[in-house]
Amino acid sequence: MKDTAKHLEALREKMRKYKVDAVIIPGTDPHQSEYVTAHWKLRDWVTGFTGSNGTAVVTLNEAGLWTDSRYYLQAGIELEGTGVDMYKEDGASDMTVNEWIAAHLREGGVLAVNGLLFSMSQTANLEAFCGENGFRFATDFDPFPAIYTDRPELPLDPIFIHEEKYSGESTESKNNRVMEAAEKRGADSVLLSALDEVAWTFNIRCNDIEFNPVAIAYGYVSRKGCALFVDMRKMTDEVKNELAQSNVQVLPYDGLEHFLGKLKNETVLLDPNKTSDTVSRWMPDCVFVYAQSPVANLKAQKNDVQIAGVRKAMERDGLALTKLYMWLEKEVPKGGVKETGVAEKMIQFRAESPLYRSESFGMIAGYKDHGAIVHYEATEESAYELASEGLLLCDTGAQYLDGTTDITRTVALGTPTEEERHDYTLVLKGHVTLASAIFPAGTRGSQLDALARQFLWKECLTFWHGTGHGVGHFLNVHEGPQNIRLNENPATIKPGMITSDEPGVYKAGNHGIRIENLILAKEYAHSDEFGDFMCFEPVTLFPYDAKLIDLDMLSDAELAWINNYHKEVRERLTPYLNEEQQAWMNEKTKELKR
Amino acid sequence: MKDTAKHLEALREKMRKYKVDAVIIPGTDPHQSEYVTAHWKLRDWVTGFTGSNGTAVVTLNEAGLWTDSRYYLQAGIELEGTGVDMYKEDGASDMTVNEWIAAHLREGGVLAVNGLLFSMSQTANLEAFCGENGFRFATDFDPFPAIYTDRPELPLDPIFIHEEKYSGESTESKNNRVMEAAEKRGADSVLLSALDEVAWTFNIRCNDIEFNPVAIAYGYVSRKGCALFVDMRKMTDEVKNELAQSNVQVLPYDGLEHFLGKLKNETVLLDPNKTSDTVSRWMPDCVFVYAQSPVANLKAQKNDVQIAGVRKAMERDGLALTKLYMWLEKEVPKGGVKETGVAEKMIQFRAESPLYRSESFGMIAGYKDHGAIVHYEATEESAYELASEGLLLCDTGAQYLDGTTDITRTVALGTPTEEERHDYTLVLKGHVTLASAIFPAGTRGSQLDALARQFLWKECLTFWHGTGHGVGHFLNVHEGPQNIRLNENPATIKPGMITSDEPGVYKAGNHGIRIENLILAKEYAHSDEFGDFMCFEPVTLFPYDAKLIDLDMLSDAELAWINNYHKEVRERLTPYLNEEQQAWMNEKTKELKR
Repeated sequence: MKDTAKHLEALREKMRKYKVDAVIIPGTDPHQSEYVTAHWKLRDWVTGFTGSNGTAVVTLNEAGLWTDSRYYLQAGIELEGTGVDMYKEDGASDMTVNEWIAAHLREGGVLAVNGLLFSMSQTANLEAFCGENGFRFATDFDPFPAIYTDRPELPLDPIFIHEEKYSGESTESKNNRVMEAAEKRGADSVLLSALDEVAWTFNIRCNDIEFNPVAIAYGYVSRKGCALFVDMRKMTDEVKNELAQSNVQVLPYDGLEHFLGKLKNETVLLDPNKTSDTVSRWMPDCVFVYAQSPVANLKAQKNDVQIAGVRKAMERDGLALTKLYMWLEKEVPKGGVKETGVAEKMIQFRAESPLYRSESFGMIAGYKDHGAIVHYEATEESAYELASEGLLLCDTGAQYLDGTTDITRTVALGTPTEEERHDYTLVLKGHVTLASAIFPAGTRGSQLDALARQFLWKECLTFWHGTGHGVGHFLNVHEGPQNIRLNENPATIKPGMITSDEPGVYKAGNHGIRIENLILAKEYAHSDEFGDFMCFEPVTLFPYDAKLIDLDMLSDAELAWINNYHKEVRERLTPYLNEEQQAWMNEKTKELKR
Repeated sequence: MKDTAKHLEALREKMRKYKVDAVIIPGTDPHQSEYVTAHWKLRDWVTGFTGSNGTAVVTLNEAGLWTDSRYYLQAGIELEGTGVDMYKEDGASDMTVNEWIAAHLREGGVLAVNGLLFSMSQTANLEAFCGENGFRFATDFDPFPAIYTDRPELPLDPIFIHEEKYSGESTESKNNRVMEAAEKRGADSVLLSALDEVAWTFNIRCNDIEFNPVAIAYGYVSRKGCALFVDMRKMTDEVKNELAQSNVQVLPYDGLEHFLGKLKNETVLLDPNKTSDTVSRWMPDCVFVYAQSPVANLKAQKNDVQIAGVRKAMERDGLALTKLYMWLEKEVPKGGVKETGVAEKMIQFRAESPLYRSESFGMIAGYKDHGAIVHYEATEESAYELASEGLLLCDTGAQYLDGTTDITRTVALGTPTEEERHDYTLVLKGHVTLASAIFPAGTRGSQLDALARQFLWKECLTFWHGTGHGVGHFLNVHEGPQNIRLNENPATIKPGMITSDEPGVYKAGNHGIRIENLILAKEYAHSDEFGDFMCFEPVTLFPYDAKLIDLDMLSDAELAWINNYHKEVRERLTPYLNEEQQAWMNEKTKELKR
């Protein structure tokens, strides 16, 4: 009997005991995190599926798991023999979670969840769904403490202060600005559940979640005082004193319920998509203002200190990338370099910087047809050995104390084919057109998205991922509120926001191309008649692969932009490079001429 | 005492009698029409303001009128001395209607409207607003029959059939497709309130509203039978028989309430943005499905017969435009041609086609700085006399039995300045880039909008109107559901949709430039790996002004597109032209070379 079967049976025993007919087990935590710590990997424990996105539904006799296209293969393997069926989350072919539940529950049946793991919006939707279908809905079902006996504890890594020399703004100033925004919405206080929002607001960082330098914590901001709720074992006296000086009280993580219960006649601003249903019930005497947290926009607009930090971090990242690509050019022809080895080397080169803390996500190094798998993660078994031919796509980023990086370069390890050069240049044209766009203040990312896709579209090509995601400052490499995608998102691009610019094209079984810089939104010019205009500055510093550029496909403006960027890369990185590296960089950034 | 003052006082007398503290008088009719017949110009009667968009609010002592930037000047003049204050609808400077009411009503005060003139969505919002503010809300206040004694009757123009040789689909087939769509939403029937939806569904046309060839009518579609509600005096036996053969019963316009009242246990699909609150109350025994009417999408996707008709209509329109611009070249140097005369001449030339019925909107002929007023309407007093210098912007369209046209051309009457040529070419580049775009099926207009704006944006220029609106087939020149705008609209561009492509730039006090074609969305190609792609065909046929094109600013692809379009214009129009006209057209469309 597989472990999964035992776990499922233990869960069903509790379901029978508490008369629960169906339970939903999500892949997230009480903070609605994209990535979670081992303690909250309950869905993994029940189903055996370990991907970063997936929702399980278990009835007394059946079970389903919903995930997206990145994980169809993996889920198929991991779920084999478990009795859990996989369903495709994207695509109209499969039943949705709700349709499946509607088909498997009788009228009067009980659907139960742990309300701590579901946002207020999600439970409201589930409640309406149950109402329409005549099911009963319970939000207090948490059998795991009783059945998951060897469950990992929450991490106890120490919290540290993100110093003002890096963050550029004191905790007091941030709390003041959060309250100014909250008061405009008529709120007396703000409850923060999202981990990156707590980290930004209190200038704290930790290692609780891989790649995301956040602490598992809640935050509370008001004019009367602020509070941070964390496991006290993660606290040093130094950090506690520092926070006390910023008028932030440190309280136990499991003391949140008690604290909130004592709030009387207070109007609390909550983000219904980030605040769990259970937490919202801990404030019986409060009135809520439902809104996106004011922290989302404040955090996204980087200040001058943060921007200066990011520019420095990018220079050090550029040095590490120079070392990596020089190493590749030297070692690949000798043989023995595998996809997995590239990631190891990248970490090693970056770690030479004293401000380096970790990768900002697991590196994607996809060679040849592996490059066409958008979220490819090489394993020792799958990894190709690199040779002097074909394309290598590397998407990688780092967490430095002064900034977060994320870059993709695609390079030809030998002589590229005409098709490879053609495809690369189409992607590059879109990448450059977006980076060099001028646009009115108030523009949304979805309006700019087509600028990066238009050249691919002309040839009936496209890519099925976003063109750009927001990036935090020594924080999550994916952050809101802005992005640049096909889908509508009302968030506008504001000065100080850092977003990725990463069009691509993927030809299954053949090759994948993606080119990514981070771009900083800035004020460009004011026109009395036509208003304020904005532009982007590419903050990532590393050359494109000239071997892959078909100069005849570029407009004069595109060519000039690339040459100008290469000049900037060379000038900014040269002070960091030794003589051999400088020679290499000069060659890679020499002026391209038709 | 001005008439307006008398009208306001008569209204207030009724307000006092019925204990109403504030009343909202909209500029629309029971069908939520953009343009209304004289009978429904109640806001005009009360306030004296005659613009096409404006909402009045009257209390016992004060009154306000909200309108948009097109009408600030006109409203200022028309409202002078009436005691009605103007408020700007666009721009954050002025109070909104709701804010004004909240500031002028005491708690417990009564806000009243005529629910026939407000959509269900609007009354739901007003009801919530009143609830939040402690006002009472009444939807049955209609004092006008008693106080507006010389009110014009509803028009009695005869209805005529839009023959299948033009519409390309029988009424029965349309009703069948409407019901297929309605049944997917679980509805037994569909109630149509929008006049163009009624006209399309039953293949009828009329002249009840200027420029829009619709009849004032409601429609009802179900599998059991269909009904058209119109004033019987508008009906001929011939039309009645024709409709009877299509299983459409004709019933009196004022018989709708009785008819709907007899529906029992029926699930009726209603568009809450198009159906008036009062009408929705006439169905006490029905259940509603709230959705965009299925007619909106069916009507927007033109069939092959309609498309063939539009192509022919465009050829005849091109002939009329050729006559107009040749006439201008001849007459302007002689003097005596005014902006108003251009519109008269345009109508005269178009009316030479037997299928011509009317303009599709009042022609905009804006010379020099008048061209910079986006919705400029020349009057005898304001009209400039044209001379051999400066730019002339003409935006004009026609209703033909086989199609609706809408074209804007900007021409230099003398030798243009460098700035005029530069601005024109920026606009033209955007116009061409949108027209020549290839894009995946499922793309929304808001995703394509930036393609037309990007070149203006690069120089801190933009325009504050949409890039494109849907266009009906011998129907409203503005129709949904699709458009191409800055604002998000979930409607996607589907094959057969006709949309305008009309970027512009307006320099106040100087010149205005707009270039507009109608573009037909078509299937372009299918790629197994990347899905279905679409393209546009420009259906409007008339050359751009070569004098205004700076060839050095065009890419090779843009120049080739323009030359190819000019060749198409020449080849398609030549069969309609006499020798002199052909020579003129050959000159205007000769190949442009750098």
